[in-house]
Amino acid sequence: MNFGNLNHGSFTHDPYNSESEHFTAAEILGMETALSAARQGVRGSNPLVGAAIIDADGTFLAIGYHRGAGTPHAEADVINRLLGTGVKRDLSAATLIVTLEPCSHTGRTGPCTQAILDAGIGNVVFAVRDPHLPAAGGAEILHNEGINVRMGLLAAEAEDLNRQWFVAVREQRPFITARLAQTVDGRIAAVDGTSQWITSEESRQDSHELRARVDAIVVGTGTVMADNPRLTARAADGSDAAQQPIRVVMGLREIPQDAAVRGVAGTPNIPERLGQDDFLALHTHDPADVVRELHQRGVGHLMIEGGAKINAAFLAQGLVDELVVYLAPMLLGAGIPALTDLGIGTLADAQRWEWDATTTGPVELLGPDLKLTLMPAKASSVESS
Amino acid sequence: MNFGNLNHGSFTHDPYNSESEHFTAAEILGMETALSAARQGVRGSNPLVGAAIIDADGTFLAIGYHRGAGTPHAEADVINRLLGTGVKRDLSAATLIVTLEPCSHTGRTGPCTQAILDAGIGNVVFAVRDPHLPAAGGAEILHNEGINVRMGLLAAEAEDLNRQWFVAVREQRPFITARLAQTVDGRIAAVDGTSQWITSEESRQDSHELRARVDAIVVGTGTVMADNPRLTARAADGSDAAQQPIRVVMGLREIPQDAAVRGVAGTPNIPERLGQDDFLALHTHDPADVVRELHQRGVGHLMIEGGAKINAAFLAQGLVDELVVYLAPMLLGAGIPALTDLGIGTLADAQRWEWDATTTGPVELLGPDLKLTLMPAKASSVESS
Repeated sequence: MNFGNLNHGSFTHDPYNSESEHFTAAEILGMETALSAARQGVRGSNPLVGAAIIDADGTFLAIGYHRGAGTPHAEADVINRLLGTGVKRDLSAATLIVTLEPCSHTGRTGPCTQAILDAGIGNVVFAVRDPHLPAAGGAEILHNEGINVRMGLLAAEAEDLNRQWFVAVREQRPFITARLAQTVDGRIAAVDGTSQWITSEESRQDSHELRARVDAIVVGTGTVMADNPRLTARAADGSDAAQQPIRVVMGLREIPQDAAVRGVAGTPNIPERLGQDDFLALHTHDPADVVRELHQRGVGHLMIEGGAKINAAFLAQGLVDELVVYLAPMLLGAGIPALTDLGIGTLADAQRWEWDATTTGPVELLGPDLKLTLMPAKASSVESS
Repeated sequence: MNFGNLNHGSFTHDPYNSESEHFTAAEILGMETALSAARQGVRGSNPLVGAAIIDADGTFLAIGYHRGAGTPHAEADVINRLLGTGVKRDLSAATLIVTLEPCSHTGRTGPCTQAILDAGIGNVVFAVRDPHLPAAGGAEILHNEGINVRMGLLAAEAEDLNRQWFVAVREQRPFITARLAQTVDGRIAAVDGTSQWITSEESRQDSHELRARVDAIVVGTGTVMADNPRLTARAADGSDAAQQPIRVVMGLREIPQDAAVRGVAGTPNIPERLGQDDFLALHTHDPADVVRELHQRGVGHLMIEGGAKINAAFLAQGLVDELVVYLAPMLLGAGIPALTDLGIGTLADAQRWEWDATTTGPVELLGPDLKLTLMPAKASSVESS
């Protein structure tokens, strides 16, 4: 469908019915390229987004993508690549192709709609609407400024690329990553509780990099009592990283005043929304309470770090969007399993996941360990086939 | 050391002390190439072996390797590649470089010493001695026939490549593969015992190909009672493969007369040594009894197929040389774990393994599943570092 024919705010029809015949071969190739570029990013509070700029004759002028929260959006990235700093060029006949509707709001970076207007780009094609309310409406703004805007190209692929992010946004909660560090036979500690270290130094360093990227970490009171972790993101030399996640402990038990998790470290990743509250005790067993509270506090990306009961509680409620498993080439045979009961009694009810082939691929070698990244299987492949 | 200076049978010194300065740069490169070629084979009753033939000036004439039990040895393979059928060529100045001492016996294929003599190759360099008694002594035979034979080049690498095979040969037992088919969280069945199917059709077909390659399969009586498996190797269309492993059931319980595992199917992989005995009940709980009995019956490659207790019993006794894990992207949270107790109480005593980077690599995607291949970690990395 041609977006230019629509009035502002009249999106009552299904925007995904657009047929590819309304787009040129160059635009289709541009969107495929933008989708590939998007996969180079990292999942988190922001979706994976890629973009391309093509000339009127279909020539590729630039390709860009979003590298994760706090970095330029894909539109800004591709425009920066093309124009650098301050270069002027007539782009009125060019088309910016992007996998998600350009945002209209100022978050950690400025609105993409403004960047597109500033660059003088005359045409925009995007794949899917931005469901994130503060950012939505970018298409209308561009249209009202006289830009030719069309949408729906490869919409199914673009929706699929970020399908868990869409779920999180629609459920008004953070994007949630769960992290397991286990043996091949699925144990996170030996019979006597020893668990340091099942995984390698390389895996632990990777975990710290994950921590530095998320807005908040949750563990249970049991983990605090057993391991007394600091839950800070640390650099390879052991020092605290500059950016730190909010440290959240859930559960009913009181956390000792001298618990390491209470210590202040670095700057919270989202200070503008949480002030100096970089430690938070939530007196609940229910993951739904935790995600509601953290969403209200502006947490866009949450990481679950155990123990087994907490992991299972989030998984059982469908509150994990990404599962990162550090798999150590080790066997224990007995000990603490990675997960406790998920309420599954028979194989037909098993939770089905799939390897996440985006970004670093589903399997990465970290020293002696494998890092596996999974996302929930598409609903259709579980329910209807 | 120059082997030509030694008398027949005088190998009382350490053959691995040879220093690389006694070998030419071309020979070293040849052995490195032979080691790489060896890694393209498959582990089993025979070791991974690679070979190269170089000319007097160091030019590579051919590279070959052994593809697994029943196929030509590396020496025969490299000679066939160079000479084809019946071509004559003066190879008296050429050197055959091979990662293992050429065999002297007729097994499923003829002796490599004869193939080398027939080809008229004047020089042989090999890495390590063949510890397998019926095959050993090839070096002496070649030396006595006037061939210039040297050994010890890259011996440590060649020993490492097949270190578990060397262990099995020295312990006078089969090479043992254990196979697990489990969820990411290490479960092989749900709470109610359902396990069909955790893994994909592609993984199951791969398992059948493994079965067709091994000489024997062992399961416990518990698995026979619970699943009544046929334990045959089947082709993709469900029909029995032409070559079949011996089917072995261990345990004290009686196996019903109508158990599927008793059915006759195809030709045993090693008929010349077992006659028509393609089913065997061994009334023991002790893996050591099983491997002793099967070794005596000529089984060179054994696969353990469960259940969890049998897997654990072999692992606890160090009787697994290769671990194949089909990992389904699925979570159960509860159910039957892949392994029962290995007698490990604390993390320091965990069994350490490493990903087997040979052949298909340690990780293979099989439909939705990952196939992981591991071998026991080097003793040195566990004990002394």
